Amino acid sequence: MSSLPRIPRDRSDDYSEGAVAARQQLVREHTGSALEHVASYSLDPGTLPGNIENFLGVAQVPIGLAGPLLVDGEHARGEFYVPLATTEGTLVASYSRGMKLCAAAGGIRTTVVDDRMQRAPVFLFPSAREARDFGRWLTEHHDDVAAAAEATTRSGRLLDIQQFSAARMIYTRFNFATGDAAGQNMTGKATFAACAWIKQNYPGELNFYLEGQFATDKKSSMVNMLHTRGKRVVAEVTLPAALVEEQMHVSTDKLFRARLVGNLGGFMAGVNNNGLHSANGITALFIATGQDVANVAESSAAYGFSELLPNGDYYAAITLPSLIVATYGGGTGLATQRECLEVLGCYGTGGVLKLAEIIAATVLAGELSLGSAVVAEEWVQAHDDLGRNRP
Amino acid sequence: MSSLPRIPRDRSDDYSEGAVAARQQLVREHTGSALEHVASYSLDPGTLPGNIENFLGVAQVPIGLAGPLLVDGEHARGEFYVPLATTEGTLVASYSRGMKLCAAAGGIRTTVVDDRMQRAPVFLFPSAREARDFGRWLTEHHDDVAAAAEATTRSGRLLDIQQFSAARMIYTRFNFATGDAAGQNMTGKATFAACAWIKQNYPGELNFYLEGQFATDKKSSMVNMLHTRGKRVVAEVTLPAALVEEQMHVSTDKLFRARLVGNLGGFMAGVNNNGLHSANGITALFIATGQDVANVAESSAAYGFSELLPNGDYYAAITLPSLIVATYGGGTGLATQRECLEVLGCYGTGGVLKLAEIIAATVLAGELSLGSAVVAEEWVQAHDDLGRNRP
Amino acid sequence: MSSLPRIPRDRSDDYSEGAVAARQQLVREHTGSALEHVASYSLDPGTLPGNIENFLGVAQVPIGLAGPLLVDGEHARGEFYVPLATTEGTLVASYSRGMKLCAAAGGIRTTVVDDRMQRAPVFLFPSAREARDFGRWLTEHHDDVAAAAEATTRSGRLLDIQQFSAARMIYTRFNFATGDAAGQNMTGKATFAACAWIKQNYPGELNFYLEGQFATDKKSSMVNMLHTRGKRVVAEVTLPAALVEEQMHVSTDKLFRARLVGNLGGFMAGVNNNGLHSANGITALFIATGQDVANVAESSAAYGFSELLPNGDYYAAITLPSLIVATYGGGTGLATQRECLEVLGCYGTGGVLKLAEIIAATVLAGELSLGSAVVAEEWVQAHDDLGRNRP
Amino acid sequence: MSSLPRIPRDRSDDYSEGAVAARQQLVREHTGSALEHVASYSLDPGTLPGNIENFLGVAQVPIGLAGPLLVDGEHARGEFYVPLATTEGTLVASYSRGMKLCAAAGGIRTTVVDDRMQRAPVFLFPSAREARDFGRWLTEHHDDVAAAAEATTRSGRLLDIQQFSAARMIYTRFNFATGDAAGQNMTGKATFAACAWIKQNYPGELNFYLEGQFATDKKSSMVNMLHTRGKRVVAEVTLPAALVEEQMHVSTDKLFRARLVGNLGGFMAGVNNNGLHSANGITALFIATGQDVANVAESSAAYGFSELLPNGDYYAAITLPSLIVATYGGGTGLATQRECLEVLGCYGTGGVLKLAEIIAATVLAGELSLGSAVVAEEWVQAHDDLGRNRP
Repeated sequence: MSSLPRIPRDRSDDYSEGAVAARQQLVREHTGSALEHVASYSLDPGTLPGNIENFLGVAQVPIGLAGPLLVDGEHARGEFYVPLATTEGTLVASYSRGMKLCAAAGGIRTTVVDDRMQRAPVFLFPSAREARDFGRWLTEHHDDVAAAAEATTRSGRLLDIQQFSAARMIYTRFNFATGDAAGQNMTGKATFAACAWIKQNYPGELNFYLEGQFATDKKSSMVNMLHTRGKRVVAEVTLPAALVEEQMHVSTDKLFRARLVGNLGGFMAGVNNNGLHSANGITALFIATGQDVANVAESSAAYGFSELLPNGDYYAAITLPSLIVATYGGGTGLATQRECLEVLGCYGTGGVLKLAEIIAATVLAGELSLGSAVVAEEWVQAHDDLGRNRP
Repeated sequence: MSSLPRIPRDRSDDYSEGAVAARQQLVREHTGSALEHVASYSLDPGTLPGNIENFLGVAQVPIGLAGPLLVDGEHARGEFYVPLATTEGTLVASYSRGMKLCAAAGGIRTTVVDDRMQRAPVFLFPSAREARDFGRWLTEHHDDVAAAAEATTRSGRLLDIQQFSAARMIYTRFNFATGDAAGQNMTGKATFAACAWIKQNYPGELNFYLEGQFATDKKSSMVNMLHTRGKRVVAEVTLPAALVEEQMHVSTDKLFRARLVGNLGGFMAGVNNNGLHSANGITALFIATGQDVANVAESSAAYGFSELLPNGDYYAAITLPSLIVATYGGGTGLATQRECLEVLGCYGTGGVLKLAEIIAATVLAGELSLGSAVVAEEWVQAHDDLGRNRP
Repeated sequence: MSSLPRIPRDRSDDYSEGAVAARQQLVREHTGSALEHVASYSLDPGTLPGNIENFLGVAQVPIGLAGPLLVDGEHARGEFYVPLATTEGTLVASYSRGMKLCAAAGGIRTTVVDDRMQRAPVFLFPSAREARDFGRWLTEHHDDVAAAAEATTRSGRLLDIQQFSAARMIYTRFNFATGDAAGQNMTGKATFAACAWIKQNYPGELNFYLEGQFATDKKSSMVNMLHTRGKRVVAEVTLPAALVEEQMHVSTDKLFRARLVGNLGGFMAGVNNNGLHSANGITALFIATGQDVANVAESSAAYGFSELLPNGDYYAAITLPSLIVATYGGGTGLATQRECLEVLGCYGTGGVLKLAEIIAATVLAGELSLGSAVVAEEWVQAHDDLGRNRP
Repeated sequence: MSSLPRIPRDRSDDYSEGAVAARQQLVREHTGSALEHVASYSLDPGTLPGNIENFLGVAQVPIGLAGPLLVDGEHARGEFYVPLATTEGTLVASYSRGMKLCAAAGGIRTTVVDDRMQRAPVFLFPSAREARDFGRWLTEHHDDVAAAAEATTRSGRLLDIQQFSAARMIYTRFNFATGDAAGQNMTGKATFAACAWIKQNYPGELNFYLEGQFATDKKSSMVNMLHTRGKRVVAEVTLPAALVEEQMHVSTDKLFRARLVGNLGGFMAGVNNNGLHSANGITALFIATGQDVANVAESSAAYGFSELLPNGDYYAAITLPSLIVATYGGGTGLATQRECLEVLGCYGTGGVLKLAEIIAATVLAGELSLGSAVVAEEWVQAHDDLGRNRP
């Protein structure tokens, strides 16, 4: 392969028809791709600054409709059609099956139990003693630090600063409330301002990096699971034994035993999710609704918990401890993304907790569907019938 | 919200214009969404069976072009334009910046070091003693089990069966080579056949679930990181100190110290990735090229490793231990997805290791770009200039 | 083996000569053991109530003397002889070697950065919503809860209550300052009283277990490492390059590279300690000084951190995030245990932070000794010369 | 504190009365300790070379007798009195209570399911490609490597070599069978010989450290828990509901629910042990029987698993995945240690699997006792009555 030309950019308007066409032309010339479909889109490239650079065209990701999903939330109340963007066969059908089951059981109860977004600077000192002393100083000057941080943002609010010490460092987590935005950029900017204030006012020697790997953005981590990143949401349902038998063709005690055994398996395997496949529903909803899909890394972390009740009914809960969602900013305002948020009645200001609840309910429905299928041994068959199982 | 109608399905052809329109009409009627853009697509719905159910339309995810990326791999050799589908501002620009840096250093060396896909049945017994004895029997009958598994597939091959015991269970991982497919369905079917053979031939009492949470599909886990799921790929580069100073405006020793401190932070935080943001590049490439994006959960796991060489040059490596990719099957054949694979010269049979190498190289470029920005304190500024930073 | 008699107990005084002799006689009769040495002890059995039941005799664990250890702490200042109780050959010699090295470098700087002990009740509710609301109520009633807890103890103080939610539970950590006692019993009693107050005063339905596995007593855990259990202590030293070369026969850059590679290894392996062998020094000191040796499980967790300074000198730090020690209560007042605490000048009130610093310094010395030996390939040889290497 | 003299050593016989007395004298002079009890011992210092350096005296750790413990093992069969060395009040009584319960239920079934000890060299290369190729070479030359390793030992046998790759390194685990010795030294020496052979015969460039932190000696780790270090032992019992109610004053369904809730707590907290307090029994037995007590760090890792059977009976199992024990070598031959092994009928050749089974059974008994007490709320009371609860 010979040397490739640089990608052309138009400094006056890089989202103009010409700029985009120039890049498409470049790709067609130098690769085997015609870009027929990538170049076919209805969105207005003029809406893209701030979301993409070197715009070339679009990925068309098919959306299937699941539901109705019956949610008994504090923000999401009633029935919803759920748009899922995926290319994995059986996914939409399986989630729909779970939604039907849960609706028959009276719907899924959802609760947002926490909400916070982080940036996590680390501060470096000559020795542990200075580090510890800085930690105390930081606690004492919390109000000033918060003021410096909050001066950079209209809607963000500094909730608290966690400290974790090791060697001659203090790792922190600056926890913010961020409203309807996911808030990573907002917290980055606010924390940077806070650090600048600290640097200026701390009487001792001090260095810092704006990120000490405690955030932990786009990664799964124990600290995120313990202390929440984004929304912490719980979805719960109690399924009558007879209903499960009828719709899922398994008994609740078999379902429960499989969870028990699977829980130990997950613990041994060192999972970030002792449930089954939260990532499927979350990813499909993230792509559809314009979330930062890379956040699936942490958002798919989950705590599953089930109980077999004395009467044989089955209580199931899923807790998403680090679900990062927005209904404002990021990709939420783009053409199809906004429309999918509108399908859910979540677009714009005030929608984010509702969206979080719908996602958690969707995930729980999917857990129950797959969990039942594995026990009922219908699983391989389902993929064979609906999925591209071409060995 | 009143009760919503069931989603209409057309049993004769659920991907027909009429069937799709009926669903769109339903959504328009019952929600606030016009679905103008969701309903605008160039892909042929007739290609969708096996990829989506209840097809409604598409998500249009903007693609930006990064590169050229210079790869010195065993399968990917030379320069590539890299299509990244994302809505996160600065992402494409940042990856491009890293690619430029690495190209100036002679390119990124990539190596696929392992390749295997799992299904993980768990076997249950009356007590630990029977479980242990079954484990021995399974080892002794490996060839028969493999034959039963491989009878279900043209291209899959059973590499080995790992055993993990606890209480009265034997958890296993059936490890398969799966060619150019990601292979989850193939391994599911083959393992199910193997289990059927085992159930029929094992002389003792035995129960099993096809999945004991050791796979661990769509989850991050220690076992996947230790033992590979999908491709295990390493990308490496050695950056001259002067080059880093010139292009990234940081010294390599500052860069290195930040990694050192960040590494401890990540270890403390309990991350599945001691690098920075592999999920960004992987997700953007997964959406663009039709991968199962939910696999970002495990694919984004990473081991970063850097050394400051005696002459001040900077060795950086990223290891992706559980990168799940395909160039055949799944969403890879859909309209825009196939085109993006063609941009990379990876579509179809024989392309999968090349794709794995390109992804790993992309990730490494992104690590170096962000890592430098954090140290140079350019990071917040970059997001302010390019991203939707509207607090 | 025929059925064995019950172990005799003397309800009037089970620590009397007769009661002890009766048990020894039983063992001699029914097993092959003469108990000659077990029955030989100088301690007064009358001191044992509260420390042991069914007293039979003693284990004689040999103590070796290491040091002098030069400590530059806030509580431990100057030189110390360190009594190490162990049966592992080379251990005392190796720690002594490290102590000598560190003394030549000016001593080990130690800092206690945190101090807290936990009991961790979990509260259970009908659903997540009630759980969350209880969490808020608990925060609002903190002062009352603290008062109820502190009424049970002279020296304990409730620092804060951490909450971790999942499903319909609120897991908590009640964090106490416990003075010179390790404090597990004190916190148990105080937390129980707090829970009783909560149960009585909370207006809603509520169940609780006094321990929800978040303490996490006698276990290693991320939460203990992140949030401290017992003392969080850092020991640091900067070693001149020439000194390391002279005494340890390795260059500091080789030493550093081995740490770098070992760190990644530990991260991959999923360790609770990215150092080398903190458990050796801690266990030997715990046995000698009457600590609860089972706490080695969490106390041996460690964060190692090293830097190669621009001039080639070597900065090394060890952080013990969950070191559980006491100089009062438990086994600290027993015959040999008290004497060993006196050797360190730590017995009784006011000694606990001093002891924590001495332990951390000891651990660091051991890290540097073993770390050097592994790189210098002297390690196998040392064990062959000093240890019982009888293959 | 003025500068302390060096610790005197007698090069001709450092275990002579004079040498020991000289050190005692030094300590008495320079510290506040009389060493009356430390200097009182019945063991013969002439037995100590290979176990301790700078011998000063002994720690007298009180031993309590628990039991009888009824074991239905493959190596341990029948009833045992169990010597527990501890200073934690209530420990012996609590374990005895659990043993009584389990004996009434027919005894504890034990099974050793795996047995292996490691040394874990890491090999370093110019790039990942050479690392991977070395990995293949190592597999191909397994027999030669094994021969080189086994030439250094009479009883050790190389079972297999696991490989874990990252960046330009291959981390390995050399797994050995080590007979009745714990085997750390044996495996160290054998692996060093293997590495020497590799270094001599590998045709390419190669560096190695004998330990790459994958062993992971004296640390808890996922890799040890997954792949066994020392003995992997399971202890199981099925408790009739009525028996539990009668002896423990709890119903089995309450007991089970507490486990369920505790399991999730442990998973969230990131424990290495989802049981309760294995470290207590293990440590007490380790001190009594001359094990390397620092190995409590990994030996106390545990997988608890319980099921509530349809008839209300309670199945409980504990799996110790990395129990490091010996009945030969190390401290097992010392005076009191040997006697305690004799109490168990485990001293010397052929006893190690029996000892492993007794330890696992002891641990399970302790789990059931404490687990019941927590639910029955007797726990705080027990510590108050028996333990040194002096707040």
